[in-house]
Amino acid sequence: MASPVPVAILGATGYTALELIKLLLRHPHARIVAVTSRQEGKPPIASVHPSLVGRLDLALEDLDPEAVAARAACVFSCLPHAASAEVVARVVAAGARVVDFSADYRLDDEPTYREWYGHTHPDPTRLGTTVYGLPELFRAAIPAAPLVANPGCYATAAIVPLAALLASGRFHDDDIIVDAKSGVSGAGRSPKLTTHFPECNESLSAYNVGRHRHTPEMEQVVARHTGRRPELIFTPQLAPMDRGILATIYLKPRGPITEAEAFAILRDAYRGEPFIRVVDHLPATKDCVGTNCCDVTVRVVRGRVLVISCLDNLVKGASGAAVQNFNCMFGFPETTALE
Amino acid sequence: MASPVPVAILGATGYTALELIKLLLRHPHARIVAVTSRQEGKPPIASVHPSLVGRLDLALEDLDPEAVAARAACVFSCLPHAASAEVVARVVAAGARVVDFSADYRLDDEPTYREWYGHTHPDPTRLGTTVYGLPELFRAAIPAAPLVANPGCYATAAIVPLAALLASGRFHDDDIIVDAKSGVSGAGRSPKLTTHFPECNESLSAYNVGRHRHTPEMEQVVARHTGRRPELIFTPQLAPMDRGILATIYLKPRGPITEAEAFAILRDAYRGEPFIRVVDHLPATKDCVGTNCCDVTVRVVRGRVLVISCLDNLVKGASGAAVQNFNCMFGFPETTALE
Amino acid sequence: MASPVPVAILGATGYTALELIKLLLRHPHARIVAVTSRQEGKPPIASVHPSLVGRLDLALEDLDPEAVAARAACVFSCLPHAASAEVVARVVAAGARVVDFSADYRLDDEPTYREWYGHTHPDPTRLGTTVYGLPELFRAAIPAAPLVANPGCYATAAIVPLAALLASGRFHDDDIIVDAKSGVSGAGRSPKLTTHFPECNESLSAYNVGRHRHTPEMEQVVARHTGRRPELIFTPQLAPMDRGILATIYLKPRGPITEAEAFAILRDAYRGEPFIRVVDHLPATKDCVGTNCCDVTVRVVRGRVLVISCLDNLVKGASGAAVQNFNCMFGFPETTALE
Amino acid sequence: MASPVPVAILGATGYTALELIKLLLRHPHARIVAVTSRQEGKPPIASVHPSLVGRLDLALEDLDPEAVAARAACVFSCLPHAASAEVVARVVAAGARVVDFSADYRLDDEPTYREWYGHTHPDPTRLGTTVYGLPELFRAAIPAAPLVANPGCYATAAIVPLAALLASGRFHDDDIIVDAKSGVSGAGRSPKLTTHFPECNESLSAYNVGRHRHTPEMEQVVARHTGRRPELIFTPQLAPMDRGILATIYLKPRGPITEAEAFAILRDAYRGEPFIRVVDHLPATKDCVGTNCCDVTVRVVRGRVLVISCLDNLVKGASGAAVQNFNCMFGFPETTALE
Repeated sequence: MASPVPVAILGATGYTALELIKLLLRHPHARIVAVTSRQEGKPPIASVHPSLVGRLDLALEDLDPEAVAARAACVFSCLPHAASAEVVARVVAAGARVVDFSADYRLDDEPTYREWYGHTHPDPTRLGTTVYGLPELFRAAIPAAPLVANPGCYATAAIVPLAALLASGRFHDDDIIVDAKSGVSGAGRSPKLTTHFPECNESLSAYNVGRHRHTPEMEQVVARHTGRRPELIFTPQLAPMDRGILATIYLKPRGPITEAEAFAILRDAYRGEPFIRVVDHLPATKDCVGTNCCDVTVRVVRGRVLVISCLDNLVKGASGAAVQNFNCMFGFPETTALE
Repeated sequence: MASPVPVAILGATGYTALELIKLLLRHPHARIVAVTSRQEGKPPIASVHPSLVGRLDLALEDLDPEAVAARAACVFSCLPHAASAEVVARVVAAGARVVDFSADYRLDDEPTYREWYGHTHPDPTRLGTTVYGLPELFRAAIPAAPLVANPGCYATAAIVPLAALLASGRFHDDDIIVDAKSGVSGAGRSPKLTTHFPECNESLSAYNVGRHRHTPEMEQVVARHTGRRPELIFTPQLAPMDRGILATIYLKPRGPITEAEAFAILRDAYRGEPFIRVVDHLPATKDCVGTNCCDVTVRVVRGRVLVISCLDNLVKGASGAAVQNFNCMFGFPETTALE
Repeated sequence: MASPVPVAILGATGYTALELIKLLLRHPHARIVAVTSRQEGKPPIASVHPSLVGRLDLALEDLDPEAVAARAACVFSCLPHAASAEVVARVVAAGARVVDFSADYRLDDEPTYREWYGHTHPDPTRLGTTVYGLPELFRAAIPAAPLVANPGCYATAAIVPLAALLASGRFHDDDIIVDAKSGVSGAGRSPKLTTHFPECNESLSAYNVGRHRHTPEMEQVVARHTGRRPELIFTPQLAPMDRGILATIYLKPRGPITEAEAFAILRDAYRGEPFIRVVDHLPATKDCVGTNCCDVTVRVVRGRVLVISCLDNLVKGASGAAVQNFNCMFGFPETTALE
Repeated sequence: MASPVPVAILGATGYTALELIKLLLRHPHARIVAVTSRQEGKPPIASVHPSLVGRLDLALEDLDPEAVAARAACVFSCLPHAASAEVVARVVAAGARVVDFSADYRLDDEPTYREWYGHTHPDPTRLGTTVYGLPELFRAAIPAAPLVANPGCYATAAIVPLAALLASGRFHDDDIIVDAKSGVSGAGRSPKLTTHFPECNESLSAYNVGRHRHTPEMEQVVARHTGRRPELIFTPQLAPMDRGILATIYLKPRGPITEAEAFAILRDAYRGEPFIRVVDHLPATKDCVGTNCCDVTVRVVRGRVLVISCLDNLVKGASGAAVQNFNCMFGFPETTALE
């Protein structure tokens, strides 16, 4: 067997990094060689994530992009947006390949990025040319890519059904509603009042209504696939659970459509895909938690088409997708470490 | 002070009955004289609901409608639909007044009832004439009513904003989406696999898509208020929490509308109502849990109007509303025992 | 009816203050006249606690002890320890009566305070003379007290059964284990990693083993009642729920004892107490949540006596007890606003 | 590579079976050939466990012990006690090896079994001779065993630390308290009122105090290891979470002991064990959830030794242990499929 690929994880103290580490520890062809963080004192990673005691014996280290690139063939950046692009550009320049968890390379153009993220992009030339790491739509471009933009969690839940359905031409590209609910791990590991247990436990609430940053991501990525930019209303909501996203999506068909036809569009689009499960029943987020699957179903209600889409925001919505991309990039079977 | 009103609770072992008992124990003008159940052995109510130990010293008894009506001036029926109508008709005939928690008297007509509930109605003549117990819309008819149909929980969350907004004439009556999420207590107290803790905890799922029975209730009750029947898509979803409903409602305005105008419609409609709070912020279900309030806010997103409506399904969605109706029926200040 | 007692709440942004406000809003003989906080901008209290919208129309204000004492006959201090004593001394000197939620006046002596709380006491002369606000044990001293030390939540759950059982002389005063589990609201409202939802949800853990500050409180208060200082091991544990404490307590009898005898000791001690329920069944925390009750039962297992004690940490463990003390201090029936 | 071992799972509709299937699907040397259930209609297993859609394409089948033994080299019985022994005896007689999840083969003798389980044992001759499947204590006997008794979940959490500590001779064998808390999945998949979401969510309660069936299992298995039967009080408690057991154990040392000495006993006993992590910090159940680890720490408090032990009741407490046993039985590295 060939020697495993050395990999590094930047920003290793968060939840997506922890999930990524757990998946990579199971991967026969990857070896974690570095974990970085600004955290003071550079403690062992296992003292930050006690579930890693005895499983990963590395200390956190400061981030030196060129040094990391010299040691790792693949670098996973779990840094926040803006900070990520600054580092990623240097890592790529130094010759390592990158899977970027941030939103920095997902959009088509700098003005949209600036509008939604509120600052200029540190590395704007790669916008519009970086592959969006959803292999089910953009697989062909991944093996040769030096940099893959790992998709957003809500975005994946919406794009998977929308790309297939809208590509069929059977639906209006506007008048789309994405009403989505997420577990709290999606908000990250920094304590805030909104994610303080007694505040969000036993409660549901909407946030960032009409201005969540995954909105342009959904629209632009679907447009890359269908050739037509859709317009959607996206309502994110916080649910009292660790993991899981349930997106309830409402589309308006251009003419009468049966449930069987809608199912056929989805099944044709994702036939043979190991991680997209088009199911007859109404899926629960728990069916997907801990897996890299996105479960999708469809119903026709009073002439509208309603889609339910579920996934684990930390797996198919983040770290599982990253491993799937890593597998594509380095020529391993796409399901490696994901079953 | 006048002697308190003797009241009885039919079907006293469920969650709405328990919540009702707790509210009534705090009510200075009500005295619980009977609690009925089919439960064998007729144990003390406090052995079924241990939170009542030392607070209510009554044993469960078999249900004899005429005997109950002889002892109680107001009878709260927490019986399931169909079973409730059979009893309620006899209780009313025997001279007691009734607040019926079931769906039996909420709809306009027998054919709709039969279509959605799957059986013929035991007491069809009262359909279409029984007052719907949402005092904020139908207060005038309650004081003289022998029978009040207590509203459904999802229905209340939707009807409160929809009645006001649609009455304004500024919105299309169709093309309405009600995407609602409820805590598990709404499913009742009978153990089922779907409400077994390890099944529904840490999970979200939709159910009864396109065929939940609160759909015609929402449409008919809004129509009574606005004069025009709306058409809506209602998607109920189960959230991993005890209590609370969050309804996210999408409407299409007939022409341009500002957020300020939408707020004004809601504020004008519910000015002075103690239990309808039109708020600027995005409300969380937890803000309403344990209260009889329904919190509502509104946003304009890409030309659509989005409403968020929250309440506690066991209080404003059931037992609090029942006490509010009781207060209207018997001439007490409407907020008695509800603050 | 006499005019209501004007009351003020210091440190009004936390969970105990919120619970206290909700109880006081229901109290026929109290009127909240001031709520203080260091929070900048002095917003309405309802913008900090949205559940209070429409229910309490006061803005937060800076804390001026003498000015508060001039306006309020009773001041509830929800300030943290040390900060509380500095203010309480001035409020009492200025002539208002105080219920202090902090630990500052619960212990017997300054050295013990200094040992466990890590600093010198700002007002040491009142230690050892301030009444401990557990009316079930120290009711006689409360009506005349200018200052009442409101008990700790864990402490109440342990002291209620231990005081009665140890006073009987039938048990060893040492060799006592208090294994207690609490909901997360007990940790307060300041966001921390340990109370960040994805950290503590779906998890159980012990903390402060062998050094939780309620340990000397339990021992000294039981000693005031029994005349003999017990020695106990107290293990606090964090459970994934909002509210509730379950204390499992293990005692060693001095000689054989039957379950019936142990029950009789508890029942005799708390006969007629409205808030102490000695129950035959194994109580759940949920039986007490939202009530001012402490439920207690007892079992004999292999010669040891095992006690289960439950309460709501925000009610009988904090704000309910405070209202009970307020009722005692001002001559109202002790159950007012607590039923 | 050798062809994988064909395995069968009896009673495949429960939670331990589901967890086992997920682990085995990841196992490179096992192939699931049969899943049995009494469930009517013999649907695909994926229709009972939707998380298995696309991952395991088998239909449930009726249980025919001899036929199963002919097809599978290893049979995992997830049947309830008594039912399991009847089947296991026939499967073993027919030549397949068995890992039995039930309690039927864990105890030493038939009278103890009869006393605690309330019926005579269907296959009593194997009691006392069947290996207890905790490889960390009884590894040597597993490779040759035709039948392995898979340990109980609470039992594992208690036995791991107790066996090591009591074997040292530094502690009294009696006067031991095991105060344990478990997530709800430990109660199985049959809906009951006690595990109905609105009953057990946001609540903690003790059950089976003094009479839980893992008590004799803990005592007898520790005795097999130490040669002396301990006596312990075991208090099981239900916590509002899916998975995880936290056992807080109190022991009395025979003389003074330091924390360092207690740690050394545990570290020496489990040095090199991949799944027993003796940690300095206070572990949380979440550190172990999804892993086959048991995390243990120790503190000295007022002369007593307090142990905290955590594990995932469905992994190290059930299905992970079963795979670990399978690995031992069939000569695979013990950590296969468990990392």
